Amino acid sequence: MRFGFKLLKEDTNSRARVGVLLTPHGEVPTPVFAPVGTKATVKSISPRELAEIGTSLIMVNTYHLYLRPGAETITKIGGLHHFMGWEGPIMTDSGGFQVFSLERLRRVSEEGVVFRSHLDGSEHLLTPEKAIEIQEKLGADIVMCLDECTKPMDYEYNLRALYRTHSWAKRCKMAKTREDQALFGIVQGGVFPDLRRRSVEFLLSLDFQGYAIGGLSVGEPKEMMYDILDLTIPLLPKEKPRHLLGVGSPEDLFECVERGVDIFDCVLPTRLARNGSVLTSSGRLNLRNAEFANDPSPIEERCTCYACRRFSRAYLRHLIKSKEILGLHLATLHNLYFILTLMKRIRESILDGTFLDLKEEFLGISP
Amino acid sequence: MRFGFKLLKEDTNSRARVGVLLTPHGEVPTPVFAPVGTKATVKSISPRELAEIGTSLIMVNTYHLYLRPGAETITKIGGLHHFMGWEGPIMTDSGGFQVFSLERLRRVSEEGVVFRSHLDGSEHLLTPEKAIEIQEKLGADIVMCLDECTKPMDYEYNLRALYRTHSWAKRCKMAKTREDQALFGIVQGGVFPDLRRRSVEFLLSLDFQGYAIGGLSVGEPKEMMYDILDLTIPLLPKEKPRHLLGVGSPEDLFECVERGVDIFDCVLPTRLARNGSVLTSSGRLNLRNAEFANDPSPIEERCTCYACRRFSRAYLRHLIKSKEILGLHLATLHNLYFILTLMKRIRESILDGTFLDLKEEFLGISP
Repeated sequence: MRFGFKLLKEDTNSRARVGVLLTPHGEVPTPVFAPVGTKATVKSISPRELAEIGTSLIMVNTYHLYLRPGAETITKIGGLHHFMGWEGPIMTDSGGFQVFSLERLRRVSEEGVVFRSHLDGSEHLLTPEKAIEIQEKLGADIVMCLDECTKPMDYEYNLRALYRTHSWAKRCKMAKTREDQALFGIVQGGVFPDLRRRSVEFLLSLDFQGYAIGGLSVGEPKEMMYDILDLTIPLLPKEKPRHLLGVGSPEDLFECVERGVDIFDCVLPTRLARNGSVLTSSGRLNLRNAEFANDPSPIEERCTCYACRRFSRAYLRHLIKSKEILGLHLATLHNLYFILTLMKRIRESILDGTFLDLKEEFLGISP
Repeated sequence: MRFGFKLLKEDTNSRARVGVLLTPHGEVPTPVFAPVGTKATVKSISPRELAEIGTSLIMVNTYHLYLRPGAETITKIGGLHHFMGWEGPIMTDSGGFQVFSLERLRRVSEEGVVFRSHLDGSEHLLTPEKAIEIQEKLGADIVMCLDECTKPMDYEYNLRALYRTHSWAKRCKMAKTREDQALFGIVQGGVFPDLRRRSVEFLLSLDFQGYAIGGLSVGEPKEMMYDILDLTIPLLPKEKPRHLLGVGSPEDLFECVERGVDIFDCVLPTRLARNGSVLTSSGRLNLRNAEFANDPSPIEERCTCYACRRFSRAYLRHLIKSKEILGLHLATLHNLYFILTLMKRIRESILDGTFLDLKEEFLGISP
């Protein structure tokens, strides 16, 4: 099956919308939150648990898999889906974000990016062609163009970077050979309206199967991110899916769905869990806190995830304080379930015409 | 329900036997292997997974729970079963083994043992009465007498220790108040036949609900352990269950079941997994080895555990090399499943009258 996107409903009171991504590994109802499986595993969660909590799409990082175990190994084992035992839809990023953000960067040129491996210090050249080649070997359903990830506030730098991002997008499109993968272009341009407009315009001329929005939620004020979305999204074609890279707090899901985003991916729920922090409808709790030492209640009373059905805050606190893996596993399971279930409710509310009511209710009771 | 033991079948060609433990939290078919949940969690495995792989009994360590989160907390949350979400049968040890083996020991006297907490260095006095009190607060189905754990080879020391172990056993029996817990006496005496005989004789005079055999598999040659079992077990009453503490390699399960042991507990399968080592019917494999880098086969072809049904050695190696929790989780799941399934086959073979054939077949093809 080829990739496609069906728009099913548009909210009358906002840009929120409901659709479905069609991929070779199944359908993905949108808006959707994709848990991040950095090294071909969503940390501590097995594929059957991903399915149990309602995952329909995951994001995997090309940078990490390219370095270890290597794309060839994954091809030999039958591709990324088979390798990691997840037969549902997968996206990969281009590797660019890790190269630019993890201080592995050595040189950027028109040709590509030279970076140093965090494993052995070896130097590697990542070009647009190489990013596509690796992603084709991995075999995800959705793949990304190589882009230059910038700090959002420096205009001159963002302008220079944007030229490269656009030239790389074109080369990625040229390099692509697999018909069973969708290639998304990535809109950049920092916090500058004219650069964002220019970026959309250029990428539309290449006609990608979807558009990701990059370079946001990297330190700029929230309002700036929302403004950029308000500006950018109306310029994108309705019939193509829109992916906001690296965003995923409960509040941001509401704010960005409202602005027309279809796809989210974010390490927040998994990373919070590893710090003992859990998401609830009345805000975050840190399970390390002494107040939970003898607390017999679950993380959240009405939650129906396995962690909440079976275990007390007191037990979870004990596990986390004792550095027991089961503690971070259960906290991760809960946080992902919380976000995925919230997204399901958001989707239903758009279908019902009650999205803004749900948003008000949810954000009203959040601290 | 009160504790009981039903002997169902004795092998005609060995001392192997099949029975069932009756406990307030369910029946335990014997011979049985009990996974160890040191800090109220079998490392990385959830209670529902324990059930899935066929666990019928687990062993939890009093020493660790006494120090953190404390027995009172566990009582408040409804007892150990509820606390850890495992509603099946549980055993606790007395805490003595950890105190004597983890170099936390400060002083031993007739009164009890003074030890230092590994968490904050604080000093604690563990007496037989205290060991029972803590275990009654935890609320396991089977609890153990406080005993002095010795190095097995020094006669004079073992003799002195045995006096204390016996006096403590008597005080444990006196201190016990809960009718819904079975108390096991622990046979000590190092590698010395006369001390072992004396120990059994004394403990039988106190009439425990079961007998554990301690102080073996602590560095002495295997043959010595088998000799001590050959000597000790025939002295124990047939109608009471026999627990060999801290033993659980596949080879030892065969050798010790053959000698009449009913209950085993051991950290071996979980600890091996954390080192990347997995059990198979043709021996151990270390998944870290480069030879598995591109190996598409499961840990063991015929194994039906989740790890083997879904994942390749190449993927497991990738996870373990990348220090991903899912790797040690899946290796642990497999190792426990391997041991539990082996024990199930052993039990069936005793019922069939083919135990020694199975032993020969299994050990014959093991390296």
